[in-house]
Amino acid sequence: MLSDITIPSPTTLVHHKSKFPSLSNHKVGFFQVHLVEPLNTFMAKSMPSSVPPLQCGRSEEIDRRNPIFDPHKIDSKLVQEMAYDALVWSSLRGLLVGDRNSQNSGRVPGVGLVHAPISLLPTPFPESHWKQACEVAPIFNQLIDRVSLDGKFLQDSLSRTKKVDAFTSRLLDIHAKMLDDMKKEDICLGLHRSDYMLDEQTNSLLQIELNTISSSFPGLSCLVTELHRSLLHQFKQHLALDPGRIPQNNVVGQFAKALAEAWAVYNNPSAVVMVVVQAEERNMYDQHWLCTVLKERYHVRSIRKTLADIDAQGKLLRDGTLVVDGEPVAVVYFRAGYAPTDYPSESEWKARLLMEQSSAVKCPSISYHLAGTKKIQQELAKPNILERFLENKDDIEKVRKCFAGLWSLDDSNIIKDAIERPGSYVMKPQREGGGNNIYGDDLKLALERMEKAGNEENAAYILMQRIFPASYPAILVRDGISFKDNVISELGVFAVYLRNKNKVILNEHSGYLMRTKVSSSNEGGVAAGFAVLDSVYLV
Amino acid sequence: MLSDITIPSPTTLVHHKSKFPSLSNHKVGFFQVHLVEPLNTFMAKSMPSSVPPLQCGRSEEIDRRNPIFDPHKIDSKLVQEMAYDALVWSSLRGLLVGDRNSQNSGRVPGVGLVHAPISLLPTPFPESHWKQACEVAPIFNQLIDRVSLDGKFLQDSLSRTKKVDAFTSRLLDIHAKMLDDMKKEDICLGLHRSDYMLDEQTNSLLQIELNTISSSFPGLSCLVTELHRSLLHQFKQHLALDPGRIPQNNVVGQFAKALAEAWAVYNNPSAVVMVVVQAEERNMYDQHWLCTVLKERYHVRSIRKTLADIDAQGKLLRDGTLVVDGEPVAVVYFRAGYAPTDYPSESEWKARLLMEQSSAVKCPSISYHLAGTKKIQQELAKPNILERFLENKDDIEKVRKCFAGLWSLDDSNIIKDAIERPGSYVMKPQREGGGNNIYGDDLKLALERMEKAGNEENAAYILMQRIFPASYPAILVRDGISFKDNVISELGVFAVYLRNKNKVILNEHSGYLMRTKVSSSNEGGVAAGFAVLDSVYLV
Repeated sequence: MLSDITIPSPTTLVHHKSKFPSLSNHKVGFFQVHLVEPLNTFMAKSMPSSVPPLQCGRSEEIDRRNPIFDPHKIDSKLVQEMAYDALVWSSLRGLLVGDRNSQNSGRVPGVGLVHAPISLLPTPFPESHWKQACEVAPIFNQLIDRVSLDGKFLQDSLSRTKKVDAFTSRLLDIHAKMLDDMKKEDICLGLHRSDYMLDEQTNSLLQIELNTISSSFPGLSCLVTELHRSLLHQFKQHLALDPGRIPQNNVVGQFAKALAEAWAVYNNPSAVVMVVVQAEERNMYDQHWLCTVLKERYHVRSIRKTLADIDAQGKLLRDGTLVVDGEPVAVVYFRAGYAPTDYPSESEWKARLLMEQSSAVKCPSISYHLAGTKKIQQELAKPNILERFLENKDDIEKVRKCFAGLWSLDDSNIIKDAIERPGSYVMKPQREGGGNNIYGDDLKLALERMEKAGNEENAAYILMQRIFPASYPAILVRDGISFKDNVISELGVFAVYLRNKNKVILNEHSGYLMRTKVSSSNEGGVAAGFAVLDSVYLV
Repeated sequence: MLSDITIPSPTTLVHHKSKFPSLSNHKVGFFQVHLVEPLNTFMAKSMPSSVPPLQCGRSEEIDRRNPIFDPHKIDSKLVQEMAYDALVWSSLRGLLVGDRNSQNSGRVPGVGLVHAPISLLPTPFPESHWKQACEVAPIFNQLIDRVSLDGKFLQDSLSRTKKVDAFTSRLLDIHAKMLDDMKKEDICLGLHRSDYMLDEQTNSLLQIELNTISSSFPGLSCLVTELHRSLLHQFKQHLALDPGRIPQNNVVGQFAKALAEAWAVYNNPSAVVMVVVQAEERNMYDQHWLCTVLKERYHVRSIRKTLADIDAQGKLLRDGTLVVDGEPVAVVYFRAGYAPTDYPSESEWKARLLMEQSSAVKCPSISYHLAGTKKIQQELAKPNILERFLENKDDIEKVRKCFAGLWSLDDSNIIKDAIERPGSYVMKPQREGGGNNIYGDDLKLALERMEKAGNEENAAYILMQRIFPASYPAILVRDGISFKDNVISELGVFAVYLRNKNKVILNEHSGYLMRTKVSSSNEGGVAAGFAVLDSVYLV
């Protein structure tokens, strides 16, 4: 079963879908290793020389690692037993994805199923940073909402990007049309996931990105948490790990509640929630869990449509009601539409415009979508920008503390430093989903080429300081096989936000997802670069 | 996905695993069409001419069919919607089997999963016959227990079979050894399933067989019941079917309770339940559900071992304790060991003997196993035999009412009639599991050959009167595809029995399984002969 695994060398791991990891394609990693900026980001921005010379410490051990427990020391018979139980649990409880080796597994439910790749045990994470990430979630919600209301800021910040990035340009066109039409979104729904890594050297929690569209794994993340608690409970005599140190995770319930409340505020009892999906989706069971909870707990019905379906079957009634395939739509929930590949023809753009013009609650609206772009993330990291959107000084400080170093490519000091020390930076394309991050020598060459050309191409990218997370020993399970390796982890904190006109109905941290990947190729030759679902063990 | 389906003609459906349908091999049907005897079986036995000339009425419609509902009249869009929801439900809730197209799906949990083949809606079943089947279940439990205690009856009844059936012969050897050793089973545990068909002409509920070993589908049958109730509830506006007419089904809970109580009576807190399994088992999730409930609800741990494992890793302590792989075993639960193919070498027989010699509770013991053979079923149908085991006249009458016509092949009148009218009989090999039933011209030729040879070969078979169940319109779902067809159904009623010395601790009807198969090849060319899981709609 290992024969089909390719082993990318660490430096070739440049393909990413950091927002929507294709769990079914483990040949592509979803982790990004980022450039990290010192804590007072806003000062450091113009002082690249203050960036400490970070080491390429990929798999170094750190003292902070939980000393009481090393999963690599568990004897192999016990590992087999735990892995077997985890596989059974996953099968019976729906912790599943479509198998990449099965042709129809992304199209038809119930066929070609395989357990989701998982870490067998939760990964240690410092409680203080965990709390920090949860505490800042509602502030980020508020920030996104405020930014989304400033149409001029969005258009201005993205004006250079617009010239070189066709995808962002089309989104901006729709956004501009809504501004022109004075279209107002009374009901705003955000189902967000803010992703963090813990930088080993500075011991700080740094934001990788904030997903405002299609935040994946609300369903499966709850299950993997439950699985880990169950395993720790079952094997407590052997592990000496306390299941109570795994934080409760109810993101699927919280997301369903938020969708149901938005549906209720829309106030059309015969309307549905429409999930915008890709035609092929191996992560469909994550989506189905959410819709199942929505149906069973809140009695809200959902339909699934591709952008092409919506173009073919959708229309607007005079009052703005979106009707698709005969069904009025209360809430449009995007689990597609974030990547250029989701729009292969004009049909899909027509569908996106149609939805935006409707009175349906959009999750996200075009302005929420734009507010989550990397370029906006970078703009918000500039001095005095947060102050335009947030009043509370403590809140501003909490947000700023999470920002990694972020720069646009028109900053010549940074360019110079990045060419000299490319290992300390990562270059990220602006567009969301599936972007190709650039590292090392490739980064150096790209910057030199763009400097020479002197055109607008550099507006399609931002620079981030590279983050070096600590590596931990772990046991991973994929395709029914368990193996030991060292891993690095990324924490995603989910949050829900719902506002009706001036009234904020929901604004809360709602759960989490840990994603873990092999930090280096192990001796057995198992691929570096694929990621597994994980949960948090507070230390 | 249909390309790999072979289409056996009805007359070639001679391979059966009536006890343990291989859901993953749909090329092999598990239904048997049986010979039915008039109600007063014991009289008719010697009067073959009194058997009415039954028609080969495979797919005739009957008036008794629920007139309010024809699933074939549901429009195809609604069928698609319901089937989609059923597939999602099955994936999320563990209504799964190993995919026959996936190499490791019977060996490793969590890989190569596919939804269990199902009927989309429950099948109508008359309430009176349903109650009859439930009511007789504890009486059958008692009958099996009593028969099991009469070692001489078992040995005598099977003495001719022993000469020609090597498998039964080995079981009888073990049984004889236990009798010689005066081995006594204080704790007797039965997890039974009695299978019935409803004969259309006589409107009677007739027993196909009573499974005393490895009664399958306690786990998945509960799920399909729950799925059907959920679909009826969800689509109530379209279907006008009352979810309350689907009987509650908690066989998995009842089986787990029975195993847990047997474990408790055995009274060794450090002992486990050992599930005896086949090395490859695509129906493993059915078994895992049972063990999961056992673990989660009763905190009883189970291990899974093949007969070969048990031979290699098992031993008896001086006090009779069975220890396998270092674990003392309280209860041996057989989900293998019923078929000759389960014993490819002497190892497996040694394992079986070892377990039988131990003090562990056997589910079933060798005598329970033998009491469930077809030959014993046929012997019990002889006049005045039931009276040897049951005192209560009402009970005897209830049991007898369920008996189909059953004859041994030393009855020349019956042989003559069966050669003249082979379509009214079925010839069943004595041995359990995977037996090849013989019908029609093959039956005629076999009887003629055996008459000519005049040897003991005929002792390996019994004759049953053929049962002709009514055919119903249905929608079946397999491999993610739904299709309409006419079906016949078999009702399996589960029952649990636990006795400790003279004290009967449990004796109750515990749930049910409906299995449904296409009654004739449909025009679209989908295979006749494969079976799906189903539930009951009381009419």
